[in-house]
Amino acid sequence: MTTISNIPAVQSIVKTVLHFGIDQAVLSPGSRNAPFLISFSAIESIKSESIVDERVAAFVALGKAQQTGSPVILCCTSGSAMLNYSPAIAEAYYQNIPLIIITADRPKEWIDRGEGQSIRQMEVISGIVSKQVEWDYHKSEADNQAIINEVFKYSIEYSSPVHINVPLHEPLYGVDEMDLSISSVITNTKPDFKRIEKEDFVTQYNSAIRIMIVCAQMNGLIDCREQVKRLSEDPRVVVLTETTANLYQLGYVCCIDRTLAAFSSENTDFVPDLVITIGENIISKRLKQYLRNHKERIDAHWHFGLKSMDVFDVARYSHGQNVREALASLAPTAQIVEKPFSTLWKNVFFKSEQSHLQALPELPYSDLKVFESIMDLIPDDWQIQMGNSSVVRYFQLFNQLPKNKYFGNRGVSGIDGCTSTAVGASKVSRDPVLLVSGDHAFRYDANALGVTGLPPRLKIIVINNEGGNIFRIIDGPRSQESIDVHIEHHEVKSVKGLVQYHGVEYRSASDIQSLETELAALFDSANDKTVVLEVFTPRLESPDVLKRYFASMR
Amino acid sequence: MTTISNIPAVQSIVKTVLHFGIDQAVLSPGSRNAPFLISFSAIESIKSESIVDERVAAFVALGKAQQTGSPVILCCTSGSAMLNYSPAIAEAYYQNIPLIIITADRPKEWIDRGEGQSIRQMEVISGIVSKQVEWDYHKSEADNQAIINEVFKYSIEYSSPVHINVPLHEPLYGVDEMDLSISSVITNTKPDFKRIEKEDFVTQYNSAIRIMIVCAQMNGLIDCREQVKRLSEDPRVVVLTETTANLYQLGYVCCIDRTLAAFSSENTDFVPDLVITIGENIISKRLKQYLRNHKERIDAHWHFGLKSMDVFDVARYSHGQNVREALASLAPTAQIVEKPFSTLWKNVFFKSEQSHLQALPELPYSDLKVFESIMDLIPDDWQIQMGNSSVVRYFQLFNQLPKNKYFGNRGVSGIDGCTSTAVGASKVSRDPVLLVSGDHAFRYDANALGVTGLPPRLKIIVINNEGGNIFRIIDGPRSQESIDVHIEHHEVKSVKGLVQYHGVEYRSASDIQSLETELAALFDSANDKTVVLEVFTPRLESPDVLKRYFASMR
Repeated sequence: MTTISNIPAVQSIVKTVLHFGIDQAVLSPGSRNAPFLISFSAIESIKSESIVDERVAAFVALGKAQQTGSPVILCCTSGSAMLNYSPAIAEAYYQNIPLIIITADRPKEWIDRGEGQSIRQMEVISGIVSKQVEWDYHKSEADNQAIINEVFKYSIEYSSPVHINVPLHEPLYGVDEMDLSISSVITNTKPDFKRIEKEDFVTQYNSAIRIMIVCAQMNGLIDCREQVKRLSEDPRVVVLTETTANLYQLGYVCCIDRTLAAFSSENTDFVPDLVITIGENIISKRLKQYLRNHKERIDAHWHFGLKSMDVFDVARYSHGQNVREALASLAPTAQIVEKPFSTLWKNVFFKSEQSHLQALPELPYSDLKVFESIMDLIPDDWQIQMGNSSVVRYFQLFNQLPKNKYFGNRGVSGIDGCTSTAVGASKVSRDPVLLVSGDHAFRYDANALGVTGLPPRLKIIVINNEGGNIFRIIDGPRSQESIDVHIEHHEVKSVKGLVQYHGVEYRSASDIQSLETELAALFDSANDKTVVLEVFTPRLESPDVLKRYFASMR
Repeated sequence: MTTISNIPAVQSIVKTVLHFGIDQAVLSPGSRNAPFLISFSAIESIKSESIVDERVAAFVALGKAQQTGSPVILCCTSGSAMLNYSPAIAEAYYQNIPLIIITADRPKEWIDRGEGQSIRQMEVISGIVSKQVEWDYHKSEADNQAIINEVFKYSIEYSSPVHINVPLHEPLYGVDEMDLSISSVITNTKPDFKRIEKEDFVTQYNSAIRIMIVCAQMNGLIDCREQVKRLSEDPRVVVLTETTANLYQLGYVCCIDRTLAAFSSENTDFVPDLVITIGENIISKRLKQYLRNHKERIDAHWHFGLKSMDVFDVARYSHGQNVREALASLAPTAQIVEKPFSTLWKNVFFKSEQSHLQALPELPYSDLKVFESIMDLIPDDWQIQMGNSSVVRYFQLFNQLPKNKYFGNRGVSGIDGCTSTAVGASKVSRDPVLLVSGDHAFRYDANALGVTGLPPRLKIIVINNEGGNIFRIIDGPRSQESIDVHIEHHEVKSVKGLVQYHGVEYRSASDIQSLETELAALFDSANDKTVVLEVFTPRLESPDVLKRYFASMR
């Protein structure tokens, strides 16, 4: 017997959580949601943790769900609490990560009547969740239950954030003794991509001679490794893969920005007839720009993934959700082509690799060199959490490490929750987790370090280039004075005090030698304790080094 | 001549800002909003500041607008940035504080197509702003301009947050030299409460014999001091005022919770025939409960304020916005009543004051005693910013200080931005600002201390009772074990390291003696430097002391 809330709506939802075998909950303290807090924390099979700052709580839940692929429960009190969830919810929505958001609410009849901690909770996140439902006291418990079931199923099947709003009347603290043993747990099924686009695309595929497959973020959700591999053996096919696809293998073009820098953007030899994208958001702005600029040369763009991604604006665009089935229905042809598209791309990729290897030893200490050291020294099987937004771009300049998994918040690409996401991921991952973050993003999400029980296997590298010089490395202004004041927000101070306040081990480095020593120690102590290594890099030189690097690709 | 963005939409909006004489902008760094950043920071008459964490930025803007009554510009980049604004926007909406939120967006045709940093920006905050508009490239500039003008006017007239979404195409960094001298600045007019409820309520007023006027939060927005005072001279009338009304004067009942504790909640002698509420949210939960419980004895509830506040669920409820006109049309009567309602209330208020004065010297060091010391020592004219949520309740137990102004985020009553709000308020206030916060709320909003240029006149008292024992002082659970783990989120550590990391002076106290010494020093150095005084109080004893205090009221 378990002591849980005596409120039927709460009991019903709690039982549904058990019924679907969900075992992770991130709760934030409050009074209106106390019935849920009392219940979840009493159930042994649910691993509950309590995080005060709801922004942090939601990103921690996102990190957990990113790793397991199963929904994580988020539960907060009424009022502005849920608004603090919203940055992570948007990220989950666009990254296809399952979250079940349970918000306690005041009784409906008291909204907009001057009651404290009350807002229109159904309205405010409607644009960033896939399904929304409210416990309705005019319906029977069974009817409510049926609706809640559907929402849980949707979250699991379509791997997305869903919202359940629960108006609760006082008293809130009554309890019941209940038998919560569940006879059958519904196994979390991965999305089965039921809907199939009924297009006769096999013919089109067979007649194409320049096929580009772009693998974008998929968090292991779409298991199409074998299908892509089989197609890649076709000389007509080049596979471009981003780190976040976690699909890399030899023969794929993995450093897209670097490779594109090795030929002129006016050169149309590299434009495909047919481009197939898989997964979610594409990081490479250069690729998007290159294909958009030459879109009239592209016969068709097919996208396979949960959400539509009509990102190149090609006239003939189709979207299907049935990735594996679709790819399995295609096959390499024996067709001999004179100048295979695949070879063309591989050659330029190889050329850019050579330039990369030649350029790096010549370049001085800078952000780029820090990434070189990290990539040289990181052990196999460490998971890499890439912060936004310059970090992820730097990582993609280095050949993808085949044994490491890469993650990053590229759904909405905000800097708001990178550390919290890594904290969440490290709590459920068995592998050591390396987060690399800018100082800008790290300070933004500083409350993440206050989460209790930071796992020892979490290591954080903060690249302190005195405040986000992303705006110097993407196309942008170099001349305006306001870059210093407003766009870039130049910061000068170390994060040492902040890290130490949270009782986390602090280390620092400021040149190649100290960096390599510190990295060696960091990677050597995988299960020792959480460490933050702050790496100071030159603010103005780093973007110039990167510019020289790209120039050397030509 | 001023160098601003060459994008017509941006120029048009920037000119509107000048046209309405708006002189405060809080900007957050980004690339998509760079045209606004370049422009606002170039204009001398606009005081712009840059804050990275958009949650903090929005609460700082709220604090500024709370003080000046004039709109503050908020401007951020596309994607999740604006979601971090949302807690402060909701607070502004329910507290009636004017904010003009300008969000840069990707071009409309690229939303939901896999473009980075893009969400449905018009949808996500629609439930918490009063007006929303998007720059529409299909309309002429003049038409867009006319729409933008209306939105600005609405924000000023109805003192509310409004949202302008501006899709921007690349290139983003072009500039023009422009003459920005404005021939006529539109004077910010206070709301004039045009709409009048056409009810014949003078007759009803004259026939009532037990009239209660409740003054709730109004931030100086509603100037009805004289009208209320005139009506209070009527023996039929009792005026109950909360701190946040800033209307207190002798003869008003100002400690509502304490006064209600002095008689049985079953006693209906104190129930009015007619209750008139003015302003926004009422803090006192006891008052709401008492009147709701006896609502069938109340003939009518009239509310005057910008938003409807049908908080007691009285059958005959009317809402009007014309506070001053309505009150001015009413008059005290010469009618002699046997047991004047006013006297009844004043007597019990006086009784509770006597009990208060008797009880306090007997009580041991605890949260309550800390407030006693603060109230004893705070100089006249200091502004008090009350954190949520136990802090504001403690303050209301002490007779309101007539020369100090009281503020608090009681629109939605979140703990998410109390410090940032005080930072914003202190930046525009001439008076010294005292923020009193719980440790819970202070850590939540810790990034507020990272705002550059903290004014020396800002002093912060953090009451560290090891984590929000609000749930022990409002009606709630005392027995469940989970109170410790999840509802209350017990924390033990000092905020010292956090404060020092931000380069702010840290002081501490842990008993009456050290507290009084520290308070004297704090209040003595109004313009010296920003100080955080951490006051440690006993976690478990404090709620018990409060309980004893309330018991002694009877």
